[in-house]
Amino acid sequence: MIIGKQSIQFDRAPYILEASSVVGKKEGEGPLGKLFDRVEQDPMLGKDTWEEAESELQKIAAEGVLKKSGLTKADIRYILAGDLLEQMTATSFGLMDLEIPLFGLYGACSTMGEALSLGSMLISGGYGEYIMTVASSHYAGAEKQFRFPLDYGNQRPLAASWTVTGSGAIILSMKKGRARITGITTGKIVDFGMKDSMNMGACMAPAACDTIYQNFMDFNRQAEDYDKIVTGDLGYVGHDILIHLMKEKGFDISKQHMDCGMLIFDQETQDTHAGGSGCGCAAVTLCAHLLRQIEKGAWKRILYIPTGALLSKVSFNEGRTVPGIAHAVVIEHVS
Amino acid sequence: MIIGKQSIQFDRAPYILEASSVVGKKEGEGPLGKLFDRVEQDPMLGKDTWEEAESELQKIAAEGVLKKSGLTKADIRYILAGDLLEQMTATSFGLMDLEIPLFGLYGACSTMGEALSLGSMLISGGYGEYIMTVASSHYAGAEKQFRFPLDYGNQRPLAASWTVTGSGAIILSMKKGRARITGITTGKIVDFGMKDSMNMGACMAPAACDTIYQNFMDFNRQAEDYDKIVTGDLGYVGHDILIHLMKEKGFDISKQHMDCGMLIFDQETQDTHAGGSGCGCAAVTLCAHLLRQIEKGAWKRILYIPTGALLSKVSFNEGRTVPGIAHAVVIEHVS
Repeated sequence: MIIGKQSIQFDRAPYILEASSVVGKKEGEGPLGKLFDRVEQDPMLGKDTWEEAESELQKIAAEGVLKKSGLTKADIRYILAGDLLEQMTATSFGLMDLEIPLFGLYGACSTMGEALSLGSMLISGGYGEYIMTVASSHYAGAEKQFRFPLDYGNQRPLAASWTVTGSGAIILSMKKGRARITGITTGKIVDFGMKDSMNMGACMAPAACDTIYQNFMDFNRQAEDYDKIVTGDLGYVGHDILIHLMKEKGFDISKQHMDCGMLIFDQETQDTHAGGSGCGCAAVTLCAHLLRQIEKGAWKRILYIPTGALLSKVSFNEGRTVPGIAHAVVIEHVS
Repeated sequence: MIIGKQSIQFDRAPYILEASSVVGKKEGEGPLGKLFDRVEQDPMLGKDTWEEAESELQKIAAEGVLKKSGLTKADIRYILAGDLLEQMTATSFGLMDLEIPLFGLYGACSTMGEALSLGSMLISGGYGEYIMTVASSHYAGAEKQFRFPLDYGNQRPLAASWTVTGSGAIILSMKKGRARITGITTGKIVDFGMKDSMNMGACMAPAACDTIYQNFMDFNRQAEDYDKIVTGDLGYVGHDILIHLMKEKGFDISKQHMDCGMLIFDQETQDTHAGGSGCGCAAVTLCAHLLRQIEKGAWKRILYIPTGALLSKVSFNEGRTVPGIAHAVVIEHVS
């Protein structure tokens, strides 16, 4: 079951039973717009603050996946969830009403990868019949949290990414579902000394490379063994760096690589610079798009690697580096 | 293995192989002072910022437990760790050099309970030979993060607690160790509508009550089935509320109840008001004190319940409530 240095290959591979996604207006206007379960036109979602709006996104995604799977909140053994806000307040206030035992996670934008990794081990280990994973982000909340409140009207460099407003929720189970998680590779913190919070792709690419390389080693695989290798939110800048770093390690993943941050927005028309980012980016792209491709068999096996940048505004202002982390999940078609 | 609504009773109960603790000067002068592995006299630990100082505490605790157990970092399959700082920066920078696959957790001051719960399931499920759990807090970093920087010299109301400067690290394994984790009860978010960040005990007591009561129901136990019922950091105010709330549910836990926040400081002489708090409080008290009592058989079985208050300075300033969460771990003597 344990293979190599950092991976698990499941003897009893858990299923992604169902998934749900909700996004904001801009994401709804993007290339994946028609695939999301719900597109919210009001960025405040009728609430008074950005933080409450993000909480509402989590609540909608969680209630959505319960409804789609025909389950009630009492059926869910655990929720594994997280977000980008300080002390994870979107999660605390968003999921409170569900009254489900909660393991709060912080993995920055790698959260959905972390949650699926832990959730798969718990389901496969027999610790619950149904486990829910949730991750979210909100453009305005993230800008306020990490950079500047929107009202400042600051300039965005071309290397900056656009935090996705959205939340994805997934229910894992041993009952046959839409796809199967057959393995995981858990990431270490990787620090290449980058310090630019306006260039998160460059900060996270080395972590993505580290985890993908380790996945290849542990499973004795190479790029061709995956139909797609999908990172979370490296964006255009991080994508180029990742391809380069993997080549240095002897692997050409340029044919298989996709990035959720490059899929979710149209760079030409949506003015999103380096691409989408945030916990919500990898989460909603999996729930709305990737999962459908796997389910219908267009892709037989993918490596899904949400990527996180481990910074706070305090660590950034104190001149610290921005280390990255990436958690890989092997997702396969169920025939 | 799954019992009741929120609990696991382990068929293969994992061991606490070894534990390590490091604290600051004030904790070293308290009633448990002689029990800690290391007492740091310099609150900055030779670093430039409070955040770096807290990272250093985690590093010392993690390296300490490796040394005490005769293991190297390559032996550890996963670290499950967290802290109180925004975006968990103490953990990211403190544990980076260990190069061990990391699952970052956010459970506020319940982190060590959350980490032991997930870690025990992973070890018992066969997902690793050794798993490390780490939690930390720092008085000055927490005051700056949640209330006011120390330089402001603000008044502290009597209901306020004193964040413990310290970090505890534990290695879990199926190899026979110093104590055994035989069960867990995972907490839900509980919100009684309290809004006072200077009275965290009152905010967290309802969550502690909810988890302890559920533990009693799931395991069909009562107070007398535990030698001690030890909450994390309710302090004097929260202690009184917890006893009262449990009585309302028909259980008198006043003979068994202890609180790490009441154990770690001398209220009379150390001017710590309601008691100690922070992720570090429950972590170092377990590592240095509780574990010793269980190991030597003074206590055969305890219920250890670290308690977390789910607030950020943003949620507080926006007038939101302070919900709580508590994760219970059943720890037993190994004969």
